[in-house]
Amino acid sequence: MKQKNIVVIGGGTGTYTVLTGLKKYPVNLTAIVSMADDGGSTKVLREEFGILPPGSVRPALVALAKTPQTLAQLFNFRFQKGTGLNGHNFGNLFLTALTQQFGNFEKALEEAGKILGIQGKVIPSTLQNIRLVAQLENGKIVRGEANIDVPKHDGRLRIHMLWLEPKATANPKAISAIKAADLIVIGPGDLFSSIIPNFLVQGIGEAVERSKAKKVYVCNIMTKFGETAGFLAKDFLDAIEQYLGKNSIDYILVNKTKPSRERVKKYEKEKAEFVRGYLKEFTGRKVKVVRGDFLRKKGFIRHDPDTLAKALFSLL
Amino acid sequence: MKQKNIVVIGGGTGTYTVLTGLKKYPVNLTAIVSMADDGGSTKVLREEFGILPPGSVRPALVALAKTPQTLAQLFNFRFQKGTGLNGHNFGNLFLTALTQQFGNFEKALEEAGKILGIQGKVIPSTLQNIRLVAQLENGKIVRGEANIDVPKHDGRLRIHMLWLEPKATANPKAISAIKAADLIVIGPGDLFSSIIPNFLVQGIGEAVERSKAKKVYVCNIMTKFGETAGFLAKDFLDAIEQYLGKNSIDYILVNKTKPSRERVKKYEKEKAEFVRGYLKEFTGRKVKVVRGDFLRKKGFIRHDPDTLAKALFSLL
Repeated sequence: MKQKNIVVIGGGTGTYTVLTGLKKYPVNLTAIVSMADDGGSTKVLREEFGILPPGSVRPALVALAKTPQTLAQLFNFRFQKGTGLNGHNFGNLFLTALTQQFGNFEKALEEAGKILGIQGKVIPSTLQNIRLVAQLENGKIVRGEANIDVPKHDGRLRIHMLWLEPKATANPKAISAIKAADLIVIGPGDLFSSIIPNFLVQGIGEAVERSKAKKVYVCNIMTKFGETAGFLAKDFLDAIEQYLGKNSIDYILVNKTKPSRERVKKYEKEKAEFVRGYLKEFTGRKVKVVRGDFLRKKGFIRHDPDTLAKALFSLL
Repeated sequence: MKQKNIVVIGGGTGTYTVLTGLKKYPVNLTAIVSMADDGGSTKVLREEFGILPPGSVRPALVALAKTPQTLAQLFNFRFQKGTGLNGHNFGNLFLTALTQQFGNFEKALEEAGKILGIQGKVIPSTLQNIRLVAQLENGKIVRGEANIDVPKHDGRLRIHMLWLEPKATANPKAISAIKAADLIVIGPGDLFSSIIPNFLVQGIGEAVERSKAKKVYVCNIMTKFGETAGFLAKDFLDAIEQYLGKNSIDYILVNKTKPSRERVKKYEKEKAEFVRGYLKEFTGRKVKVVRGDFLRKKGFIRHDPDTLAKALFSLL
């Protein structure tokens, strides 16, 4: 039987989790990742080398890496000292060196994939050098993904509009992957700084809408101050569909298990809150709600890669 | 038939050349490399991370690397820009990150060897943090390998004495490899800054002397200002035997082919000269002289890896 094609759209830790789980299944995996990142190590490398954000593709590469394991772990290593090295992820430097050597980011990404022996593909949503811009509900404009991600403004203010500067068109490989998909998994991940930036690239949203694949949105377990403060599960979906089109999502995966008070307490200082996903929020809507125990058993309040992958695979 | 053990002692480009040629033969290769390097990228990383010199093991690792080729090439990539990155070899950063992750240089080197799939072993001559010191014939003392390598003093002055600060003992793995060797290849390479520093480590010289292996010294094709200005082939051998013991070398490989005037001219500004290796220099000595056409056909005046390896292998 021909293996089914799963396309995962996002970036960051959420996409890492989905890929880590799904790579254990006999499917063709493609990760389409946002190119809007501009914080920390990535910010410095973007500015000094004019390259696309290495930090955006790194988690997906590491998740899909087969061997050698040491190298994949080293990709996430962050220098803690050294003039000019301090704060840099080794994987980011790796991708920067490859880009310098091969002349372009796409080729560098391909070579990195070979070196890591990745099972699947990692595709930047656009190959243009872009910047994410948000307009808040009070009219204020915030430039740069990192400034949205870690707000210097009042993080309770909702994001009213989001766009890219300059306008960018889709990486043709992203469009092809979406066209060939049997299942499209959107999220989890930072809604406005990791997920939606993919749909701001001209061509991606349209391709997802037109695709015959089943479309799943994996709702975040926690809100994020500055992006989704006070959000219910339905608010996440509404934001996605604002960019993708009404009723474009077939399934929403919602975690029903509340983490212990202790675990939630650790998120207080970043003002993140547990997202209660209730069935009744979706009454009368086309979307099918899959409620499940998707919570990782301990540590960070994140999805468990295996339970999540199992639920996603069952939708194929 | 059991494969023979060849131990190559040195560091830098010369060792790279020998290993590149010999790895095509069915032999067990071990490179023992000097830990005295302290210039450029290596200097910064030694100072800021307190690690052993990554630049010393890098050429040997790259020479012995099997797959993937891209990664080996990337090891030699040097950043040409970027605050704090400019001038760093990617391989040096790779080894630094591994050392930080695994806690020690030896383990890092082992892991790097696995990742590069090296055919053979790369062994630091000592695991202690050392500094090379030279006393010139005028009594002046020069501290640091880089200051000997690129002299700020009059480079015609001969090096009278050479030692390590602090005194260092041999890496036990280097001693074991020397004991098990069938052939020991010394050089080519910078005599006082790459080759002899290995013999300054307590235990290495004695082990080489006592070893039943055939001992070959591959004489440099060009002199080096600040180290071997005006040297004849026999002067190179004399310097080696000053540290290893009289008559300790069984064979000296001497290149007989003079490079074109054009090629030699390029070395004028660094005041390097062609070494004429004449048989008569060695009249009455125990050492067997192997004169051959070891010159690379074009480019830098260096040994040709294949002709050199062929000659070395025939001595087994």
